[in-house]
Amino acid sequence: MSKLKGAMIIGQSGGPSSVINSSCYGAIKAGLDNDAITTVYGAANGIVGVLNDKLYIMDEEDPAELALMQYTPSSALGSCRYKIADPDVDDTDYKRILEIFQKYNVRYFFYNGGNDSMDTCNKISKYMKKVGYDCRVMGIPKTIDNDLYGTDHCPGFASAAKYIATSLVEVYQDAHVYDKGQVTIVEIMGRHAGWLAGAASLAKVTGYGPDLIYLPEVDFKMDEFIEDVERIWNENKNVLIAVSEGIHYADGSFVSEAKTSATDGFGHAQLGGLAAMLADVVKSKIDGVKVRPIELSLLQRCGAHLASQTDIDEAFMAGQAAVNCAVAGETDHMVAFKCTRDENGYKCETELLPLSKVANYEKKVPVEWINERGNDVSDEFIKYALPLIQGETQMKKENSLPRFVHLKKVVAK
Amino acid sequence: MSKLKGAMIIGQSGGPSSVINSSCYGAIKAGLDNDAITTVYGAANGIVGVLNDKLYIMDEEDPAELALMQYTPSSALGSCRYKIADPDVDDTDYKRILEIFQKYNVRYFFYNGGNDSMDTCNKISKYMKKVGYDCRVMGIPKTIDNDLYGTDHCPGFASAAKYIATSLVEVYQDAHVYDKGQVTIVEIMGRHAGWLAGAASLAKVTGYGPDLIYLPEVDFKMDEFIEDVERIWNENKNVLIAVSEGIHYADGSFVSEAKTSATDGFGHAQLGGLAAMLADVVKSKIDGVKVRPIELSLLQRCGAHLASQTDIDEAFMAGQAAVNCAVAGETDHMVAFKCTRDENGYKCETELLPLSKVANYEKKVPVEWINERGNDVSDEFIKYALPLIQGETQMKKENSLPRFVHLKKVVAK
Repeated sequence: MSKLKGAMIIGQSGGPSSVINSSCYGAIKAGLDNDAITTVYGAANGIVGVLNDKLYIMDEEDPAELALMQYTPSSALGSCRYKIADPDVDDTDYKRILEIFQKYNVRYFFYNGGNDSMDTCNKISKYMKKVGYDCRVMGIPKTIDNDLYGTDHCPGFASAAKYIATSLVEVYQDAHVYDKGQVTIVEIMGRHAGWLAGAASLAKVTGYGPDLIYLPEVDFKMDEFIEDVERIWNENKNVLIAVSEGIHYADGSFVSEAKTSATDGFGHAQLGGLAAMLADVVKSKIDGVKVRPIELSLLQRCGAHLASQTDIDEAFMAGQAAVNCAVAGETDHMVAFKCTRDENGYKCETELLPLSKVANYEKKVPVEWINERGNDVSDEFIKYALPLIQGETQMKKENSLPRFVHLKKVVAK
Repeated sequence: MSKLKGAMIIGQSGGPSSVINSSCYGAIKAGLDNDAITTVYGAANGIVGVLNDKLYIMDEEDPAELALMQYTPSSALGSCRYKIADPDVDDTDYKRILEIFQKYNVRYFFYNGGNDSMDTCNKISKYMKKVGYDCRVMGIPKTIDNDLYGTDHCPGFASAAKYIATSLVEVYQDAHVYDKGQVTIVEIMGRHAGWLAGAASLAKVTGYGPDLIYLPEVDFKMDEFIEDVERIWNENKNVLIAVSEGIHYADGSFVSEAKTSATDGFGHAQLGGLAAMLADVVKSKIDGVKVRPIELSLLQRCGAHLASQTDIDEAFMAGQAAVNCAVAGETDHMVAFKCTRDENGYKCETELLPLSKVANYEKKVPVEWINERGNDVSDEFIKYALPLIQGETQMKKENSLPRFVHLKKVVAK
């Protein structure tokens, strides 16, 4: 295929992770280094920045400062939760995107996000084809939820997993300190997929792990939960529980009471408050027990000081691959990871998956990795996830605090 | 003074910290290395272990494994919240302690904890003097709350401060990611003293800090809080707030609603739930605002992966000094820190304070370090705290997860 010359836009969407900026930096750096790319634009707040004609000129940034993106959590360009319409129903946004693409001669569009972002990517790509505007569109995966289809894992998952496992090992020390014992309930993100809650199992490798782990892949039974907690409490007066925010009863309703009103832009319920609710249940069932609910909240997705260097490197590689493959002629694909774990260790390489296959499909934890009682995961999970969290971040510090990127953000006119 | 020969007991009490084990290890190591100390016992769960005749023989531990205590958070020997009686009212416990001291020829007693622990220490010391049992008693300070009298700071504070500041810098990235903005409220420990909430100000050194900081040293005014949040929200659609769990109204009542029933062994209210409560207030006052409450909970006091190496080293030094000074003839004192911060940098050395002066007095953040509006701290706070958080922990990792100590805990007969 011919070498298409023009500008590129990179945008970030959806919830932050510790390494989405590493992917973004990988794409920006590949763009800056490639002759086919005339200008590298960063969209302010994802597709919203394109619609609002707010594009940052990444070429204007100081290279050394820009490189700090690799170790800065969250989305340095800003994110959004904008749900783009079906172009057959309403093509207003698409016309506007085309207008902006034409204004800046954008021939490459990269979108860095999760399921919803791959859907946005796919729709834009199809529209540009339909109207005959030559633009290559690639998705760069990102989600701590690890639920994207067709890829061994998603950039961002491993760093969150490492944060969760490390915190569990540490909370274990704290929770086991008193002579009178304690039930500790740690609430972990993950709306429909239990990858993050499952990552709590990695703590067991240290000898200090949770007693019970509940994932949303199987129905939650409150009576069995109480039985499990009581049994372990009676045995050793200490119970450490990891629970996914997304656990639900057999009828599909969330166990969390906080699912009520607040929703994000996609109509997903905003969860949280589950640990506190379960703590109340445990207190009402076991006499005189001390219960401590802990919600890892945003910390688990922005705790870059605990990022996995493997994750950071792979995220960079995914961003870089997206740009290089696009310049080489590819379009309408998401970069995915193909990995091997065997006696030779762990290996990871990129491959491309058609966007249409990826969009809006959620990959869950295999049910065979969850025990029959539905309160733990098997060693298979640990074998899968442990290689991903290896390596300490090379994050720069100043005054023993993180030195995160400060971008100039020069807006294109 | 003559060299007193006999066994020593070290006990840990009160809430955990990231470095209390480093102090404990400092004392144990000094004890093992000193000829005057015949056996080093660790009390299981503090004074409760003495009362129950459950003492671990630290001489039986593998030295390399034992050294891992220095980087292991929480109290490796176990802690307690046991309130010892006034010996003039009820001397049952003291008689029992004397019995155990005699049984094992204990001539040195070290207690590692906060205010309540120094009080326990002081009472035991006085009783032993009264009954004429020759035993040297020293307090080793520990409290993330940093509220012990007469010492520049307390071991444990700096590591919690570093955890809080780092988390704030990271949460800032996350909280500023969306185009629609967010109010983020981070709840920080500290019942009566605002040292930990004040540590949130350290994040500002990175360029990414909280907009508002509320300490319990001054009365909280809900109307002014709402005004402050609304003003900043209207300015930039993003507000990051750090708030101490212990903030209270002018009448002394806690703002937190969760202060209701649960109390710890000393009758202190168990706080928490404040961030969620303030989030509800903000939501009810500002139309359509997204508010995210975050409670740092136990994580801030056990997050040893973010411990300050300065704190670890000083904690070790305090434990070591307690033993060495006791063997040299000192008793009835707590080890304290005397520090200088000037053009030559930061220096810290130990000194001794009479236990009677320290017990049950809480040191608070100087009111002149808090601004007039009561919603921030001054640069004086940063100058005080920044040197304390310097240095990255040398914690050992295996599989990229913390390698914490596994003690044999051989119980003395």
